Amino acid sequence: MKPLGPKVVALGGGHGLYASLSALRRVTDRLTAVVTVADDGGSSGRLRRELGVLPPGDLRMALAALCGDDEWGQTWRDVVQHRFRSEGDLRGHAVGNLLIVALWELFGGGEPGGSPSGSTVAGLDWVGRLLGAHGRVLPMAAVPMDIVAEVRGADPACPDEITHVKGQVACARTPGTVLGVSLVPADPPACPETIAAVEDADWIVFGPGSWFTSVLPHLKVPALARALTSARARRVVALNLAPQPGETDDFSPQTHLEVLQAHAPGLGVDVVIADSGVVDDPGALDKAVQELGGRLVLAEVAADDGSPRHDPARLAQAFVQIFSE
Amino acid sequence: MKPLGPKVVALGGGHGLYASLSALRRVTDRLTAVVTVADDGGSSGRLRRELGVLPPGDLRMALAALCGDDEWGQTWRDVVQHRFRSEGDLRGHAVGNLLIVALWELFGGGEPGGSPSGSTVAGLDWVGRLLGAHGRVLPMAAVPMDIVAEVRGADPACPDEITHVKGQVACARTPGTVLGVSLVPADPPACPETIAAVEDADWIVFGPGSWFTSVLPHLKVPALARALTSARARRVVALNLAPQPGETDDFSPQTHLEVLQAHAPGLGVDVVIADSGVVDDPGALDKAVQELGGRLVLAEVAADDGSPRHDPARLAQAFVQIFSE
Repeated sequence: MKPLGPKVVALGGGHGLYASLSALRRVTDRLTAVVTVADDGGSSGRLRRELGVLPPGDLRMALAALCGDDEWGQTWRDVVQHRFRSEGDLRGHAVGNLLIVALWELFGGGEPGGSPSGSTVAGLDWVGRLLGAHGRVLPMAAVPMDIVAEVRGADPACPDEITHVKGQVACARTPGTVLGVSLVPADPPACPETIAAVEDADWIVFGPGSWFTSVLPHLKVPALARALTSARARRVVALNLAPQPGETDDFSPQTHLEVLQAHAPGLGVDVVIADSGVVDDPGALDKAVQELGGRLVLAEVAADDGSPRHDPARLAQAFVQIFSE
Repeated sequence: MKPLGPKVVALGGGHGLYASLSALRRVTDRLTAVVTVADDGGSSGRLRRELGVLPPGDLRMALAALCGDDEWGQTWRDVVQHRFRSEGDLRGHAVGNLLIVALWELFGGGEPGGSPSGSTVAGLDWVGRLLGAHGRVLPMAAVPMDIVAEVRGADPACPDEITHVKGQVACARTPGTVLGVSLVPADPPACPETIAAVEDADWIVFGPGSWFTSVLPHLKVPALARALTSARARRVVALNLAPQPGETDDFSPQTHLEVLQAHAPGLGVDVVIADSGVVDDPGALDKAVQELGGRLVLAEVAADDGSPRHDPARLAQAFVQIFSE
């Protein structure tokens, strides 16, 4: 029988979190995903505007990444990931988004004295049960958030001007250079279950993923940032395999770490994972990691298909090595 | 341990079928609902027009009526029955309708040589598994249908004129007197699983429900009508507790039976259930039933709340008595 494994909390959103969860589910049965709730585009953005709910898309993807291995889990994963392709009212909606939102509405009547995030967590747990999920999925905050990016040259006609760009979609697409992000509201109510998972973790994993819009937002939720900084867990940063067009065009691995540190002064980093095939200057990266007080693990974690995606088995192998040391 | 019970096929749609299934699930574990697929209103009508699928609403209600008794079954029943209450794109959609349609799209790729209704049945069976359903739900035909009613006085200015009214919603709302219904297309592909269930049944139950738009349409699907007429099963008709405004305003119980017979010449009727409290002239009804070759069972099957709804436990008791004779 496989041991339960360490208690791991993975932070992120979108495809990056899907990649880390696809690896981590092979390593531990005690896995919690903490997911951004700042999306304002696509199906999630429309649901958020129409129904006033948390944007469910990143939560849905994380749940799908954790689905059971049997026919039941795989079928319901395919259902929750299915998107309607019509030109009508349902265009582009992912079925799992609708299911999550329905559970929130159903449980939202709530009980007097209940936690405000209680129905949110209950709804996600029910979708987790449906999928036979190998782990739990929680939101980074209990209310919908907006990302605000500080951008240099958002208007190409004024390349040196620094302005603010609001909304995840706008931040991800700005032609300028993103310098940093903050959140609106600035001090949202935290989700108690999320804070408890962070405080109880053995390991906390940041990334991979869209650096400014999926990885860093967690650090701008004050209550969550305090928990992440003070938790007894050791902290791992999994770097991306390629810069992301728009968000981090010219960013070296070291720049990613500098930006992380700038968004969470005092956050310790114990391990940084980078792919040995894509780091141009391992010496410089090693030096930057040491300055953070951590150590660099270079490993082959990229997929063979040439895409900038992690191979789940290889990334899992890197986590096994790190967690066992 | 409860015996499996007889093999029962219940025909109908909407609230009437919900009532018969709520009773029959207490009587047998071998229960199949055969459901109208001619709805063109509300959530079902919009999905049908937007995605070209069978209208799922009556199928969803039947599945909900069969949900498991435990927390799992009750919760997923509440989810599939939940309706979005926004003013936006999702307004009025029942979550189960979206889930059924998604499964149809997912399975719809189909396999070469597969039955055209295979993905329809597979999708319904998966929702049945989700709900822990006590029985199976199948469509009366494999393609979306439209009801066409022959109506006298559809235009109140011409009370004697006979015209045709198309669409379930229009038929249910016409101010005229409905004389009969037919279907478009007139000879749709049958669902093989539905025909097989009818041929294998011990008992077939017609009604209660909207007589012209939920109970009679099955008899206008030629392949299904042939199976219903030639099946070895005994046939029970459960009469409504009150005339339905619009459809059957001035209809006596005897008129309901006459209309049934007119839509399916040669269909044998073995038992007719009517509520002893609402039949004005039991002698006349008894005579009409005997002329059909059947026998009348008068029982208290109405709910106590004064609504024209059947009490599930009382209706179940009537079925137990009938099935055991």
